[in-house]
Amino acid sequence: MRFDGLKGFRDFYPAEMAFRRWIEDAWQGASRAAGFEEWDGPVLESLELIAAKSGAEIEAQLYAFDDKGGRRVTLRPEMTPTLARMVGARAGGLPKPIKWYCVPQFFRYENPQRGRGREFIQWNVDVIGSDEAAADAEVIAIALDALRRLGLGPEDVRVRLNDRGLLKRKLSQLDVSGDDEAPALACLDKLGRDRSAGARLEELLGVDRAAQVAAWCREFPRDDAAELAPVLQACSEMGVGDFVEPDFTIVRGLAYYTGPVWEIFDRKETLRAVAGGGRYDGLIASLGGPDLPALGFGMGDMVLGELLRERGLAPAEVPRIDTFVVPIGEDMLSAARRVVARLRAAGVAAEAPYRAINVKRALRAADQAGARRAVFVGTDEWADQSVKVRDLASGEERTVPFDELE
Amino acid sequence: MRFDGLKGFRDFYPAEMAFRRWIEDAWQGASRAAGFEEWDGPVLESLELIAAKSGAEIEAQLYAFDDKGGRRVTLRPEMTPTLARMVGARAGGLPKPIKWYCVPQFFRYENPQRGRGREFIQWNVDVIGSDEAAADAEVIAIALDALRRLGLGPEDVRVRLNDRGLLKRKLSQLDVSGDDEAPALACLDKLGRDRSAGARLEELLGVDRAAQVAAWCREFPRDDAAELAPVLQACSEMGVGDFVEPDFTIVRGLAYYTGPVWEIFDRKETLRAVAGGGRYDGLIASLGGPDLPALGFGMGDMVLGELLRERGLAPAEVPRIDTFVVPIGEDMLSAARRVVARLRAAGVAAEAPYRAINVKRALRAADQAGARRAVFVGTDEWADQSVKVRDLASGEERTVPFDELE
Repeated sequence: MRFDGLKGFRDFYPAEMAFRRWIEDAWQGASRAAGFEEWDGPVLESLELIAAKSGAEIEAQLYAFDDKGGRRVTLRPEMTPTLARMVGARAGGLPKPIKWYCVPQFFRYENPQRGRGREFIQWNVDVIGSDEAAADAEVIAIALDALRRLGLGPEDVRVRLNDRGLLKRKLSQLDVSGDDEAPALACLDKLGRDRSAGARLEELLGVDRAAQVAAWCREFPRDDAAELAPVLQACSEMGVGDFVEPDFTIVRGLAYYTGPVWEIFDRKETLRAVAGGGRYDGLIASLGGPDLPALGFGMGDMVLGELLRERGLAPAEVPRIDTFVVPIGEDMLSAARRVVARLRAAGVAAEAPYRAINVKRALRAADQAGARRAVFVGTDEWADQSVKVRDLASGEERTVPFDELE
Repeated sequence: MRFDGLKGFRDFYPAEMAFRRWIEDAWQGASRAAGFEEWDGPVLESLELIAAKSGAEIEAQLYAFDDKGGRRVTLRPEMTPTLARMVGARAGGLPKPIKWYCVPQFFRYENPQRGRGREFIQWNVDVIGSDEAAADAEVIAIALDALRRLGLGPEDVRVRLNDRGLLKRKLSQLDVSGDDEAPALACLDKLGRDRSAGARLEELLGVDRAAQVAAWCREFPRDDAAELAPVLQACSEMGVGDFVEPDFTIVRGLAYYTGPVWEIFDRKETLRAVAGGGRYDGLIASLGGPDLPALGFGMGDMVLGELLRERGLAPAEVPRIDTFVVPIGEDMLSAARRVVARLRAAGVAAEAPYRAINVKRALRAADQAGARRAVFVGTDEWADQSVKVRDLASGEERTVPFDELE
């Protein structure tokens, strides 16, 4: 009987796994270069905690169920509720600002499509306990550092930056506030992607005010945008100014953002956002954590993976082993294992076949493994406690005493 | 409102995460030194696939539920079903022997106790397509290599080795076969740990035959144990002979093992097994995969973590950052950010505070971060495009041009 994997879930064969680790290594490297510490939480959380942030309607997208103890639980769809819970549990003992990152897997019951599955890996970077624009700029710079490590520069991607406070101030100047504010923000959020959003904005605000909003979007940020200045300046100082562009249509759907909000897109914008983040000052407290300002972003592996593949970017091929050890005949299998053990103890990735194979096949196997050299273990040399070492690129060979092999 | 994490699930704060990564790095290093390739599968699989291996009774231990599409699914409790599924899907295209490892998280609804939670991380190493004892010895050597990387030697841990073929042969010499075989194996499996197992063996086989089995256990392996010789010899050749001891009571509960079986225990045996593995030649085919010989092992992070902590072993402390950048006054914050960006671009882990702090507090922060040096950005030096660099161990200071900072 043959079984299938679940729709929307990925099998990582070695090639796909190497691609995933390449991305994760870039995330890890960029995080650590900035002094962020790694953390993680459980894959499973109480539904109560997750729903406290996103509302009960998120349940339609959740892998939620009752566990054997009758608890209503869910696979995590994101990390912020867990972050709030964990910071809340130790708030007093953690030096501020808290600079944390994680590389968890998330689960959402959505329709699989290009760049979206039912599971994905997402890099999360958060700062808790700073209300400075320097912190907003720092996390933007970290996101871009990771992209640069993967080979993406300002010609490939850009950060579209806005500010929730600015958005609300501009809307209130048009007497858009209260109940109208949220729907107006939702229209703005979709203005670039969805042609009907403009019509809905007209319906909501009337033709005149909708035209004014559209004009702002076009002119932005020549128009007054004082809220963005500190983040823009700090981004320049952090060396990523050429990536960042103010954009009045970046809203980030989620209600809890309070300050700068931003998304990273490929310049061609054929894909959804590669990353998104912003400041969410009241959220940690609303989830039972301490009342501390906070900000952060998430960058998933799926849209990013699409973009990297589109640009022909891929990890450098890492040889599976460094040294392939070739026993010359059945009798030398045992000696070959001693050679392998010696090499591994010296920190060299080495292997020998489990059974005797002829030299031609051995060299093909060495080549497939990407080996740099072959070590031939033959009766005559071994009688002298030596082996023959061949550089597989140059073909050069020399006899090396077993004791000196490394 | 305060939320709690689920019972049996772990929160990884940075200290716990560093401990986990330390273990995972040892697993990764030992795997790669032996030329094994990393793979991964979905956290969620169909219940049908998981139950095909372990039988329906395993469902009591599973986090199983119906997804929103009405599929009966489960969080993975182990990796072998996924391995069989994935190898089955590409069997023809994969060069043999397949040498794969993975570091997945597993989920089992069990009563949490010391060294056992409802989730754990488990290193899995498998070889598919070799029936040589050299392959059995290699995976044992890899398991021990990882333990050595963590600081555990032959004085700390031992491999208890047996062979299913040997067990069955010895039992059949006593006319124990057919329906009696499985219960007899189950008693043997518990003989070391459970005092009632001896009584049950007497009940099952009669006093005489039970005494003969007990005598074998004591005398083992002076008695005929030819099945173990090739693995023992290859283990010696791989340099891990002093870890390995034949042990007639190692059975591994699971029915599908066919050849060598082994478990790693701490020498004091105060903890459950640190790792366990063996040969399972028919299993891949029974799960819909190709009919290839196979073997492997699993090593979880929880018993191992207990053992490491018991021995006082822990990862070397890695400084959070290398260089702490100190702006001397509010005016220098912007320059400090340029210094940080320069250092990070040069591959140095560096940070500056988001707001101006006095030098005393800055030095305390640098110390807490484990920084090796501080860079002071002051008005006078900055006017000359220079900064002051202090080695925090020696206290030595020198002025360095911004352009030469690295």
